[in-house]
Amino acid sequence: MTTTLTKGGRMAAEIAEQPAQWRTLMAEAGPELDAVAAQIRHYDPHTVLLVARGTSDHAALYAKYLVEIRLGKAAGLVSPSTMTAYGARPDFRGVLMVAVSQSGGSPDLVRSVEVARECGALTVAVTNNAASDLARAATAHVDVLAGPERAVAATKSYTAQLLALHQLLDRVGGGNGAAAAALPDLADAVLERGGDIAELASRYRFAQRMVTTGRGYSYPTAREAALKLMETAYVSAQAFSAADLLHGPLAMIDPQVPVLAVVADGIGGRAMAPVLPRLVDRGADVCVVGSASAVAAADAGVVLPSGAPEELSPLLEILPFQLLALHVAVARGGDPDASRGLAKVTETL
Amino acid sequence: MTTTLTKGGRMAAEIAEQPAQWRTLMAEAGPELDAVAAQIRHYDPHTVLLVARGTSDHAALYAKYLVEIRLGKAAGLVSPSTMTAYGARPDFRGVLMVAVSQSGGSPDLVRSVEVARECGALTVAVTNNAASDLARAATAHVDVLAGPERAVAATKSYTAQLLALHQLLDRVGGGNGAAAAALPDLADAVLERGGDIAELASRYRFAQRMVTTGRGYSYPTAREAALKLMETAYVSAQAFSAADLLHGPLAMIDPQVPVLAVVADGIGGRAMAPVLPRLVDRGADVCVVGSASAVAAADAGVVLPSGAPEELSPLLEILPFQLLALHVAVARGGDPDASRGLAKVTETL
Repeated sequence: MTTTLTKGGRMAAEIAEQPAQWRTLMAEAGPELDAVAAQIRHYDPHTVLLVARGTSDHAALYAKYLVEIRLGKAAGLVSPSTMTAYGARPDFRGVLMVAVSQSGGSPDLVRSVEVARECGALTVAVTNNAASDLARAATAHVDVLAGPERAVAATKSYTAQLLALHQLLDRVGGGNGAAAAALPDLADAVLERGGDIAELASRYRFAQRMVTTGRGYSYPTAREAALKLMETAYVSAQAFSAADLLHGPLAMIDPQVPVLAVVADGIGGRAMAPVLPRLVDRGADVCVVGSASAVAAADAGVVLPSGAPEELSPLLEILPFQLLALHVAVARGGDPDASRGLAKVTETL
Repeated sequence: MTTTLTKGGRMAAEIAEQPAQWRTLMAEAGPELDAVAAQIRHYDPHTVLLVARGTSDHAALYAKYLVEIRLGKAAGLVSPSTMTAYGARPDFRGVLMVAVSQSGGSPDLVRSVEVARECGALTVAVTNNAASDLARAATAHVDVLAGPERAVAATKSYTAQLLALHQLLDRVGGGNGAAAAALPDLADAVLERGGDIAELASRYRFAQRMVTTGRGYSYPTAREAALKLMETAYVSAQAFSAADLLHGPLAMIDPQVPVLAVVADGIGGRAMAPVLPRLVDRGADVCVVGSASAVAAADAGVVLPSGAPEELSPLLEILPFQLLALHVAVARGGDPDASRGLAKVTETL
């Protein structure tokens, strides 16, 4: 940690902890994951609904791709207000509802799980607090084992959620989660290049607006990257699925709106191919996080190590963005550890 | 139409046509809606999935609220890439898939419907083109009868989609759609105040960033308002569910980021109560579209006529935002009818 990072020191420390936390999760969570996966397999849901807010909503979105692609089931993200504010009591027989929350303390998620359970759903909470109201409200609980998170911006709890959801759903699909074994070492390799990312941050010192984009498994990364930039560096960062970007928002792109694109190895990255030239046509300044060839063709970028299966790539993709948000925030004189206007548990009903 | 609107004349004309188009839809679509609703009731889906892109995705989001609240069924928005790019073949027996598209020409939606049908779903296309590939690919089709839409920015096709989805789902739930009968007259009353909205546009002449927000049924309005501002006036407009706004993005709000909040009569509007004081704490300039009391407490606003049931309020709420986007675009010297970088049919796979 350099002197510059007296501000943001907590966030920096928690970003650095991630590979170790993943090793802990894979070493210790197996029996719990096996048990919850067995419960889900026995229940055999026809539909998987996910409910979450903020950063956890991006982990839920990642899980939605896993459910659709890997488990071949209908999936959706629930709007909590339908059950909390509008009093909806849907027929949830045969539905698995997965609630994802760092704190497990948001009252609207607790209420959503209670209603879903009353309406026939099997409910699973994925949290970083086994003693939380949400963990108690759900039929089953998966602890993401990220340890206490003290920075206001969620970093290590996000990747712990991604990994826990992967490990759970891989087991539901008949796997044993082993595909993730190489991830911690690959993450160490990304984090070792923190100096390059601190330098890259100077490029965005004065950017007020940014666009992030990705497709498929990398779309949740684009969403979470934008949220980190908003909540720590106060950038108006907008995330789009690359396909949606072409439906309107492309018009807003000009050389003053830098674009951060996730172009990892795999199907999602290849699906970015028709989008990148359209951005160049609009004069966009494009920074790529992903494969070496995509970075080489862009204005700037961060190369990710190869070797991770595409469905696990989001764990690596988000790391450069967490560091970028931290360094842009500090360069602007902000303190990501004391982000203005934010509390760690958000209470809405 | 004033001389100023030589630019944006098509968009202005299509905004003005909306009440008449709704009258046409309600007068002519009844038998088709009855037939499709009967087919859905007979099929009795356990889950309703929606698939769409761009503006149509906001109509799909509106339908998701109707399905969860009014029909009491599990609902979700599908990521087309899981079926198009990743080749997912989910078990969709018992699933109703509704594809929403103005043109009915997006290849990824056509492919999603084809796959869903092969995988056991009942598929319904809701489009403005009965001869489109999407209309042909689906088991059933609902024509939104908006007439040819020539402006690049979708306006009348959006509200026609909202109304058609309401009329269809109300019938699925056992109604006859009559609750919407008063809507065209109420919309006329909103559009008559176009001059006030043109004046309001001057407030945002130099705003580069904006935030839109709403809850419940009004959240799709916030999303669509942001898209109109992006694609016509090139504003970096970000939409948040008011609950998500408190999970991070609130930090980004300052007096230079105007907030446009939808606070209509009803549950969604009342759920905004805890959010508005937090925006004031951050020094935000807040413009409200909605009830007279909420507008009176804000920095600026547009009062909507009362009398519409909350679930139909989105049809009225979007009108001031369509006009605002048009007038901000024209004030900046742009031409909303020739929006840079956009095509009317977006082709991604």
